[in-house]
Amino acid sequence: MARAGDLSPEEFREAAARVAEWVADYRDRVEEFPVLARVSPGETAAMLPSSAPEDAEPLEAILDDLDRIILPGLTHWNHPGFLAYFASSSSAAGILAEFVVATLGVNAMLWRTSPAATELEARVIVWFRELLGLPEAFEGVILDTASTSSFTALLAAREAAGVDSRELGLTGRSDVPRLVVYVSNQAHSSLEKAAIAAGLGRQSLRRIETDDRYALDGQALERQLRSDLEAGALPTMVCATIGTTSSNAVDPVARIADICAEAGVWLHVDAAYAGPAAMLPEKRELFGGWDRADSIVVNPHKWMATPMDCSVLLFRDRRPFRASLALTPEYLSSDQEGALDLMDVGLALGRRFRSLKLWFLFRQMGAAGLRALLRRHLRLAADFADEMRRDSRFELAAPVPFGTICFRAHPREAANEGGRVSNELEAYNDWNRELMARVNRRGPVFLSHTVLDGRYTLRLAIGSVHTEARHVEAAYRILCEEHDEMAGAGGSAIGEERMTTV
Amino acid sequence: MARAGDLSPEEFREAAARVAEWVADYRDRVEEFPVLARVSPGETAAMLPSSAPEDAEPLEAILDDLDRIILPGLTHWNHPGFLAYFASSSSAAGILAEFVVATLGVNAMLWRTSPAATELEARVIVWFRELLGLPEAFEGVILDTASTSSFTALLAAREAAGVDSRELGLTGRSDVPRLVVYVSNQAHSSLEKAAIAAGLGRQSLRRIETDDRYALDGQALERQLRSDLEAGALPTMVCATIGTTSSNAVDPVARIADICAEAGVWLHVDAAYAGPAAMLPEKRELFGGWDRADSIVVNPHKWMATPMDCSVLLFRDRRPFRASLALTPEYLSSDQEGALDLMDVGLALGRRFRSLKLWFLFRQMGAAGLRALLRRHLRLAADFADEMRRDSRFELAAPVPFGTICFRAHPREAANEGGRVSNELEAYNDWNRELMARVNRRGPVFLSHTVLDGRYTLRLAIGSVHTEARHVEAAYRILCEEHDEMAGAGGSAIGEERMTTV
Repeated sequence: MARAGDLSPEEFREAAARVAEWVADYRDRVEEFPVLARVSPGETAAMLPSSAPEDAEPLEAILDDLDRIILPGLTHWNHPGFLAYFASSSSAAGILAEFVVATLGVNAMLWRTSPAATELEARVIVWFRELLGLPEAFEGVILDTASTSSFTALLAAREAAGVDSRELGLTGRSDVPRLVVYVSNQAHSSLEKAAIAAGLGRQSLRRIETDDRYALDGQALERQLRSDLEAGALPTMVCATIGTTSSNAVDPVARIADICAEAGVWLHVDAAYAGPAAMLPEKRELFGGWDRADSIVVNPHKWMATPMDCSVLLFRDRRPFRASLALTPEYLSSDQEGALDLMDVGLALGRRFRSLKLWFLFRQMGAAGLRALLRRHLRLAADFADEMRRDSRFELAAPVPFGTICFRAHPREAANEGGRVSNELEAYNDWNRELMARVNRRGPVFLSHTVLDGRYTLRLAIGSVHTEARHVEAAYRILCEEHDEMAGAGGSAIGEERMTTV
Repeated sequence: MARAGDLSPEEFREAAARVAEWVADYRDRVEEFPVLARVSPGETAAMLPSSAPEDAEPLEAILDDLDRIILPGLTHWNHPGFLAYFASSSSAAGILAEFVVATLGVNAMLWRTSPAATELEARVIVWFRELLGLPEAFEGVILDTASTSSFTALLAAREAAGVDSRELGLTGRSDVPRLVVYVSNQAHSSLEKAAIAAGLGRQSLRRIETDDRYALDGQALERQLRSDLEAGALPTMVCATIGTTSSNAVDPVARIADICAEAGVWLHVDAAYAGPAAMLPEKRELFGGWDRADSIVVNPHKWMATPMDCSVLLFRDRRPFRASLALTPEYLSSDQEGALDLMDVGLALGRRFRSLKLWFLFRQMGAAGLRALLRRHLRLAADFADEMRRDSRFELAAPVPFGTICFRAHPREAANEGGRVSNELEAYNDWNRELMARVNRRGPVFLSHTVLDGRYTLRLAIGSVHTEARHVEAAYRILCEEHDEMAGAGGSAIGEERMTTV
């Protein structure tokens, strides 16, 4: 008897070969699509049936609709022109590993439910830790995203703060001082979400001021810590960032580690994006002091060619993590001595076999291949930054320690006068906003923005395994074309709609 | 120039075809493996190199090691004899969809980063909601696991409780009463983890007593609520379970909904495992009242043939979810009117394109195929339960409303006297523990256990898309053989080691 509803072995074999073809075809033709989707809200939904089909449909019908309905409505994260946010790109190794992961379907919650998955996870973390130049004291787990990793670290820090939140909670008690978390005003929003989720609240998140390189000001941190201690608060965690999302700023981690050591506060390092660069000796100095952190997050699914999701949370001491969350109900108990149950670190019980992705990746690219990838990106970023310095139409808006370039175009008036900075902040911001919208409408590249010192700033972030020199060059060319077009079209070009074809 | 370190298009095409073959082969030969891994802790690790390879390796080397090192060390979740915990099984549709998901690599965080992914997610949730018979008022999101879904619901409930936890947090305040969560003493441990993570603490989790069917006692809930209110606490959430993990017990949701409505408390329903059964009219009555919940979790990755991870969180009102966690930093802002940003519900910013799995599944199996799958499982469970009732060597330990059968074997002394229950609880428990260990060592099936009323209880949970009658029959046969072997071997068989080959 065939398995009710599922494909027979023969049908599956044929279907898998067919999808393998579709996948290879998609990779070959991805540049035919605009990176940023051109649909309007509701446009995709209007093409989808209002109810689930009653009867099974053939694979070809699904693949046809994938081509007809889904692809035109997607922003293509694996397009080599994806230069927005931080890319999350899928190497061959990552895609093939995910195919195997889904087939095995292993839940790596307990050692006994997944001995090889549990031990492979521990081992690839050792490999990664070693490549990153971190001391042996660090072990870790793989979680889904940096948001989850930083939240998990905050729960451990909260437990380590000694108010017995696990047993007693934080409510209905008069003996719990205000627990406070410290980040720079450039830190990622996930830290704010973590503080909210953990019951600390937004007002207990201290956004410490930054210097002219957007790096946390150590003195300001010390002042705030002192003032909070005087007010009776309990500093719970400091999060330093190496490579902020906004501008890739690098907080002075060594200095912050000193401050944390003296105050006895948990130090978490968010290197979700930039972490892999620690594999390069020439970049290692930017990571000075991170080896003294209590916890570190690095996301292979950002700058390391691994498909979403894969976030590595490293830590020195498993105990506060277990103390904050480990629970073993009877139906999950096993008598396995000496085994490690990964469900004990983290909120989610079910855990995908993500280590297989890193295993495939490390082996199919080799450490040398990964370093070559990072160096290619760094070179492309340096080249683009040079253009921004050289070209009087543009200016660099922040240092470029990694693969992300923050820049602005000078508005028409300024451009005509050789790059003089306009005094009208709003006109300046509008000009750059419009420039970005025009560039993104063109199709071959997708940039995003941030705001630095109140000024609208374009970001070009290089991190996709697919991005080559020609894509970054295309971005520069399109930026120049659109900028000149805006300048030539007169002042009223700002905010004007114009259809562009690729 | 080839992409640094990654495969060329031609190499990728060949590799994808090769892995498609490996995947189909694995599915064909999975029954050659014991379900439960036979390795000892450290055995897999000992076969893995201590450092990452410096140079790239060919795909064949990786696949060879997958066969040689990883497969023998795995518990095979997609083995049709996986009858432990709740199965999480990978249908053809689910595997092929994951292959596509990894290839597209879409991050469905913002509408603009993934319009089709965002709208497909909303649409498949409509399809699912309709099949489940829930009113139109419910919308939802797809998260990774039920742990995360229930935690997210608790954060919304905490916000709805009105203490402004988002802004002010729960610490350093004297005006926050104790926030309390109510579950039955049979509820899943994820609720306890959620209460810890959200800062409520274990002692604020009320484990309400259950009746002789292991269902929450409504009167006891009312009493506890009253007593907490009198003590000045703030009831924050009640979680009712339809299909507990331990024994598939069904809490009286309609009754609980009345109590929640009267007390103004958030009602969350954990139907992570059993939820899909609401697609069957003949099972709908077990879900009476769940349409009045504020939030519901149902995991397609449990009883609905979807590979890990895929947990659907349904809710009536998006506002408390957004109020608890929504944050939009400048670098993620977009001016898209009328669009839905899914990152606003949930802690994780990065979100995989999980809806594609449900889309493939609904289409490749059809609603009819899914109902047929569930009915096949229910029939197999009923048949096995009948054996447990008929066979004097065994007894049923709990009602069987869904696909999980809780049962016990009578120890030798009892068996020889025709099924009389032994008075020695410990001997009884040891006998069943040993029986399970023996059965699991045999290889073709894997069962797990729970404890009900202090008594060690075996669980046989049917939920894998691959499980057919012959696998459940094999489980019964092996149980009988091992039981008789233990009985024949004399009392000292308890705890004795014995090697078994398949």
